[in-house]
Parts: sequence; structure tokens; C-alpha cells
Amino acid sequence: MKESRRNKTTEEKLVPNFNMTMSETRSQIGAISSQIVQSYDTIGGLNRIDGKNLPSRERVYGILKDLLALCFPGYFGAEPLVTKNVAFYVDGLVDTIYIRLREEVTRSLMHDAQCKGKDPVACEEIADRIALELLEAVPDIRKLLMSDVEAAYDGDPAAKSHDEIILSYPCVEAIATYRIAHELYLRNTPLIPRIMSEHAHSRTGIDIHPGATIGTRFFIDHGTGVVIGETTLIGSNVKLYQGVTLGALSFRKDDGGRLVKGGKRHPTIEDDVVIYAGATILGGETTIGHDSVIGASVWLTEPVPPHSKVTIGDPNLDVVKHDARTA
Amino acid sequence: MKESRRNKTTEEKLVPNFNMTMSETRSQIGAISSQIVQSYDTIGGLNRIDGKNLPSRERVYGILKDLLALCFPGYFGAEPLVTKNVAFYVDGLVDTIYIRLREEVTRSLMHDAQCKGKDPVACEEIADRIALELLEAVPDIRKLLMSDVEAAYDGDPAAKSHDEIILSYPCVEAIATYRIAHELYLRNTPLIPRIMSEHAHSRTGIDIHPGATIGTRFFIDHGTGVVIGETTLIGSNVKLYQGVTLGALSFRKDDGGRLVKGGKRHPTIEDDVVIYAGATILGGETTIGHDSVIGASVWLTEPVPPHSKVTIGDPNLDVVKHDARTA
Amino acid sequence: MKESRRNKTTEEKLVPNFNMTMSETRSQIGAISSQIVQSYDTIGGLNRIDGKNLPSRERVYGILKDLLALCFPGYFGAEPLVTKNVAFYVDGLVDTIYIRLREEVTRSLMHDAQCKGKDPVACEEIADRIALELLEAVPDIRKLLMSDVEAAYDGDPAAKSHDEIILSYPCVEAIATYRIAHELYLRNTPLIPRIMSEHAHSRTGIDIHPGATIGTRFFIDHGTGVVIGETTLIGSNVKLYQGVTLGALSFRKDDGGRLVKGGKRHPTIEDDVVIYAGATILGGETTIGHDSVIGASVWLTEPVPPHSKVTIGDPNLDVVKHDARTA
Repeated sequence: MKESRRNKTTEEKLVPNFNMTMSETRSQIGAISSQIVQSYDTIGGLNRIDGKNLPSRERVYGILKDLLALCFPGYFGAEPLVTKNVAFYVDGLVDTIYIRLREEVTRSLMHDAQCKGKDPVACEEIADRIALELLEAVPDIRKLLMSDVEAAYDGDPAAKSHDEIILSYPCVEAIATYRIAHELYLRNTPLIPRIMSEHAHSRTGIDIHPGATIGTRFFIDHGTGVVIGETTLIGSNVKLYQGVTLGALSFRKDDGGRLVKGGKRHPTIEDDVVIYAGATILGGETTIGHDSVIGASVWLTEPVPPHSKVTIGDPNLDVVKHDARTA
Repeated sequence: MKESRRNKTTEEKLVPNFNMTMSETRSQIGAISSQIVQSYDTIGGLNRIDGKNLPSRERVYGILKDLLALCFPGYFGAEPLVTKNVAFYVDGLVDTIYIRLREEVTRSLMHDAQCKGKDPVACEEIADRIALELLEAVPDIRKLLMSDVEAAYDGDPAAKSHDEIILSYPCVEAIATYRIAHELYLRNTPLIPRIMSEHAHSRTGIDIHPGATIGTRFFIDHGTGVVIGETTLIGSNVKLYQGVTLGALSFRKDDGGRLVKGGKRHPTIEDDVVIYAGATILGGETTIGHDSVIGASVWLTEPVPPHSKVTIGDPNLDVVKHDARTA
Repeated sequence: MKESRRNKTTEEKLVPNFNMTMSETRSQIGAISSQIVQSYDTIGGLNRIDGKNLPSRERVYGILKDLLALCFPGYFGAEPLVTKNVAFYVDGLVDTIYIRLREEVTRSLMHDAQCKGKDPVACEEIADRIALELLEAVPDIRKLLMSDVEAAYDGDPAAKSHDEIILSYPCVEAIATYRIAHELYLRNTPLIPRIMSEHAHSRTGIDIHPGATIGTRFFIDHGTGVVIGETTLIGSNVKLYQGVTLGALSFRKDDGGRLVKGGKRHPTIEDDVVIYAGATILGGETTIGHDSVIGASVWLTEPVPPHSKVTIGDPNLDVVKHDARTA
């Protein structure tokens, strides 16, 4: 098809060579456009026109990428880092992150103020403080990430080196993104923490709400399908496998039948706990005591004391002869 | 390694500086190339040479991206939209989508006709109609998406605003892509609907076959691992959590032992149903009656009446003392 | 915000227009940079400065992309392939893959030697051999992939054509990446096999360790959440569904309490086995005999004989009347 058009003019390319004439198609396209534009007026809530302060997903992804490069210098950049240029490199990176982050946080704060009818006057100032405080937190974030990488090495017999973990384990990106987004969440930044955490979710299959509180030496093996809810509390040295849900059990509704937002809805996992693949732990009152092991596919909505080992008791399997012709 | 080569010529760069000479390596590379080219003749089915009508994944992804921008104006673009330029913006977007979609649909139809030995003569005309009809459907698709976003806000206590949902919830991209791909599926477009739905699957972990039929106010929370099969019917106001499978129970085979393609193989979910994390519902006869709640990790292959609440009765857990030294 | 700055100078753009002066912000940013640089010294293990031999993720992704194009000619490239240019196309592709792969493998070998205090002198030579051997293996890899695509077509009633499978099924990318990475793993290439497999994991939700051994006609339907461990053995004609884990049961520790690396930790799946969604099979001694069917959500840590059919016996469900007002 492309071939056969090589010698036609641009205008001719716009219509296929059959019964409908070019001007008919043109006017049909025009009518469709008008209906879509009209639908922007009649179907609200999906359009953000004249709302220029909304942060951009792409720009937030770019800032996040640079923050990860700052946390793991020499791993993700195109060029190798050498000692003599590292200060220069960090200066430039910090500068560009600061400028862009401040701008996106300003957008998110102004947008939030606009939505809530509040005075947006201090937004730039607050955004500046948030951007500076996040950058100031980078050394502490790196300390936590170092403990996470060590926990991954200690916890996975397949791990060959720290470098392999940083370069290829999805939990590194998911946890690093969480630790960055959490700092923004703590400072009440709208929209941006979730944009960051959902970016990591998309890339790793690990969904950690930026509101969760997570201690040192956190390791998630494989990770696809892990969900950690907004009000989850996780202690130190906790290991999760793929498909683990730390979720809400049920939602309180107000008198009008609407969900009540807020409140502790997700579990507490104390220190030194291992939770195997596909376990589902639900509810704000469900505390897993320290040094416990939760087996694969366990479904828990009640607290268990420290040093518990919980498994699905009798798998209750039917093992019968399989005849391939009738299956 | 790179450093030490800076001053060599391009030709020299092609071989490492040790025992094998340049011409030996050259001829070995040439022999490998020939074997690969030869394997294109002997190992069929993986190569699409001289099949110029196959649609391109990258181009389909680009069209999908623009269709999503059309559905959510001002959210995903680089520049903010203002009222006075929105008609101009939509005109341009509709035009470019129309031209590119018609081309890719033509490719997929011609390729399909070629494979089936049918006459490809009407392909351009049909493709033109399909492209126009999809664009005409955009206002109705937007109405459905508005209901989905509202359902997400009403259904998730962690949701802070409609904007947060559109900018960060993976179900928005997965469901919007499904609603677009479904229109193409209904018009018997080969290849493209699945390319679109698998793109969303890759980005969100949510796998909705474009053949499924899904009502208004559809919400999927978290979403990783959700599978919705081709012949699934879903009513209005249904909420799913991560890891839910709406799948086939078993497959009919013909007398030759080959799977029978087609037929209703997947469940029916009536209005106002909630299905919690990891539930597996299988089979074309399995209907979940309206206003039912299916608990986490439930495994269902039988219909349940309206207003049912299904949970795994006794979790049957073993809780024993855990000794970390022997575990 | 952006608007109001249009006419300012670059320098002015760097600070917000409120109480903190430009020089104050400048010096605060500088102090933050210094603290981050300092943390690179004090918090080791996350930084790879002066370690110029580490392979680059982005370059490895690029090489993998070209290897996939070589395996599936005409499917993923921008331009259609015609018979008369295919040899030219393959020559060019093989050449660029060879040069880049040899460089990245050299980096990974030198880095590994450096870490282990070994002599890096033969790294270039070994890398050259590995790169050539991988390219030589492409025709055999293509033979295996052809069998995988046929198994997908035979195993999924929703599959419309081989082309649809290659263009849209996530298992194609996951399995093709595994088969390529496995060749590098067999040749003891550090880092790169895992970078490749985790790239596919990110894009498909399917996590196949490059160390696994997998026979012909391998099909994974949907795939999100599948985990296949390093020492898994899989026969011919095996079909898995989403969420299947072939994992380790427990880890041996040495006298110091550290995990013992290595050893067969993952299951053996014999020929002609089907494993349905969410089944979890754990342990190096757990062999699933040929011609067996493992049902959805089954949890297995014991071997089963050939021709077994294993299902969760009594789903043990509570079905009660659901009152939406109290749920």
C-alpha cells in the first residue's frame, strides 16, 4: 500500500482511492472532530483543559530517573563515572533535579489548591522547601537502600553479586522509588508520589503505596503482583515473595453509604518476618508478630503472635489418574 | 577496552587484538550470517519476509497513545491545552489517527486475506470504514471511561482525586485500551486489537481480551495479574482486585484432538459484584449473580445466585511456634 | 508558572521569586551536593565509580532487541523485509550485535575478574568466543522458538494465527529472551543474562531465570506472575498459566547461618504437563511426572507420579446471603 502511493501528492494520500470522494471524507473527519470537542464540554472529569498546573507524567518519570541515578551512581548512566568528575556530575544532577522537581511540585500544589478553592499563593515557596528537603534526604535514602541490597544478597541463593542485584532485581527499582516517593508523601505533595509509585509498579509489577512505612533491610523476591497498601507498617528485615498482598479487609462507609477515606486499613508486619508467595494478609488490626513465617497462599485476617509459623495445614489435594483423552 | 581503541581505524575496531586474525573473524561472521539467512527458509512460521502488509507494533502503539490523548485531553500531552486551541488540537489529532489507523487496519486486513487466500480487493475500503467508525465512537467511549473513573474514586479509600486516578491508576490505561480495542474487535479487525491489549497488559499487568464485553463503572484495583478472557461478560458496577482470573475451565477438542476455537468459554459476572484478590472463576456456564461478593483466593467453577457471599470457609491454618535456627 | 518566566534570564530562573535569595539557594544546593558526594564514600556498595567495565543495561537491552529481530525477521522492524535484501539486512545485524555483545560481555567478565581478584587478561578473548557462539546458536534457538509458537497456537482457543502470537503474546518475548539469555548463562557470562531476563520480566510479568532448563514446545498463557527458578528442569510440551510458581522450598544455611548458594532448589516438570493458574510447586525434589495436570491454586511440595491429576479437593466455600448494607 505504501509503495503504490510513492508518487502521489500529500493531499491525495489523505483519502483512499474508492467511492468516497476526498471532500466527503474531509467533512466527515471534521464532523467527528467537532463531536469529540463537544464531548469535552458535556462529559466532564476526563479533561484538563485550561488547568495548566497539572504535573506531567513524563517529566516526573524523568526526575525519578535522575534521582535513581543519584542514589546508584555509575550504575544506570550512559558513561562511566570516575572519581575526579563525580562532584561535577552530582552538582549538575542535583541542580537539574531541584529546578524540575520544584516546578512539578508547584504545579501539583497549585492544582490541588485550585481544586479545593484554597489560596495558591504560597505554593512556590512550599514546593521549593519540598524539593530541597527531598534532595537533603538522599544520603539517608541511600543508607536505607544499601541495607535493602544487602538483604537481597543475604536472602536469595541465586544472587551472584551486589552489582547483579542493583542492575537486574526489580525490587531495587520498586523499593528505591518507594523510598523517594515516601519522602514526598510525608510532605503532603499531591499526585507526584503516586505517579512515581505507579511508574515503578508498571515496570516491576510491585505496587507499594508511597504512604506505607517500611524499615531497613527490606527485600521482595521476584515481586510481580505484590501489593502494599497505604497504611501498612513494615518493620526491619522483612522478606516478601511474589504475589503477596498486604491489603484492606473492608471499608467503612459513612451514613450516606460513601467510603470513609483515611484510617489504618492495612496490616502491621513486625521485624524479621518472611511471607511466601501469594499470601494475602488483610486488615488494619492484623499484626504479624516478629520472627514469624507466613507460608505460600495463606489467607490471614487475624493477628498472629511473634515466632509463629503459619501454613495452609492440609493442602487437601485430589490426586487421581489423568487420562489425557478425556481431560 | 573502549579507551585503548580510540586511535584505531574503523576496520581494526571490528576484531579483538589476539590470536584470531581479522579476516578469520570476518569470514566466521559471514558464515554465521549465511546460516541464519538459510534458517529463514528451513524454519518457517517465524519469518515475515515479503509480507509487507503486516501491521507494525510500534505504529499501533503510537496510534493507541494518540487515541488515549484524545480520550483524556490535557492529561498526557507535553503542553497544557487551553480552550481556544482545543478544536485545532483535536482536528490535528483526529486527522493523523485516521490516516495511520486506516493504513495499519488495511495492512492487517490484506495480510489476513492473503493468509486465507481471499480476495484483498476491498481491504482499503473496509479499513477506511473501520477507522472512521472507531473515531466516531470516541464520545461514547469517553462516556464509559468517565463512569469508570468515578467508580474508581467511589471504590478506593486511598484515591485522593479524579486527577490522581487518571494520572496514576493502571486500570485507567488498561480499561481505556480495552474499550478502544473492543471497537476494533467488534469490526473483525485482525491482529491490531490484541497488539493494543497486550501493550496495556505489558504496562499494567492487566490482561483484558478485546473480545470481552464490559459494562459501565468498571474498576480494577491494583490490577497486576488480572486476566479477563475473550468471551467474558461483565455487567455494570463491577469491582475486581489484583490477581483475579475470569478464565476458561477446559477446552473442547475436535475428533482430531485439536482445540475447538470459539464458543463461550469464560464466566458471566452480573451487575454490582465485587471480586477480591486472587479469586479464580472459570467456565462459560459460571455466572456470578448480581450483588454478590467473591472473597480473596476463592476458586469457583459453578454458578452462584444473586446476593451471594462466597469465602474460603475455614482457612485451615497451622499456626506453630517458629524456631528461626531450624527453619 | 512557566508562562510568567518567559522573559527572565536563565540565572533568574534558577530561584523562585520569594524570601530566599539566589545566593542562599545556590549555597544550599551546593551543600546538598557535597553531602551526597560524601555519602558515596561512606555508604559503599551502591556506587560503581571508577569501575568502568560494568555492562550498561540500556546497551544490553539494545542488543537483545536486535537478537529478537534476528529470530523473528520482518515482525518487529520498522521496514518490511524482502527476499532480495534479507541477506544484506542479516549481515548488518549480525555484525553490529557481534561488536556490541563482545564489548558488553568483556565488561562483565573484566568486572567479575576485578571483583574476584582474578587476572582479567583473557576477558576479551573469552568474550569474543561467547559472542560468536551465541550468534552461531541462533538457528537452533529459532527452531525451538518455532516449536513454542506452534504450541501456543495449539494450546490457546483464542489464538487466531501464528502472526497474532508473535506480534502480541507476551510469552513469545519472555521465552525468546530466556532462550537467548540461557546460552549466555551456560557460558558463565556474569550479569548480562539476568539483565536480559529481568528486562523481559518487566515487560511481560514472566520471570524465567536464565539458568532454568526448558524443552521444546513451551507455552505460557497470559503469564503475569509466573516465576521459574534457576535450577528448574522443564521437559517438552509443557503449558503454564499465569501466576504459576516453580520455586524453592527452603534454603540450606552454612554453619555461620548464611544461605548456601547453588544446588538444585527448584522442581522438575516432565513432558506433557499442564499447570493451571496460580499453582505453586516448590522444592528441588518435587518432580511432576509426565502427562500430569496440576489444577489452579494447587500448592505442591511433594513429587507426583506420571498421569496424575491434582486439584484442590473440596474448595470448602461458604456461600451465604450477601446484604450490601452491612458488607
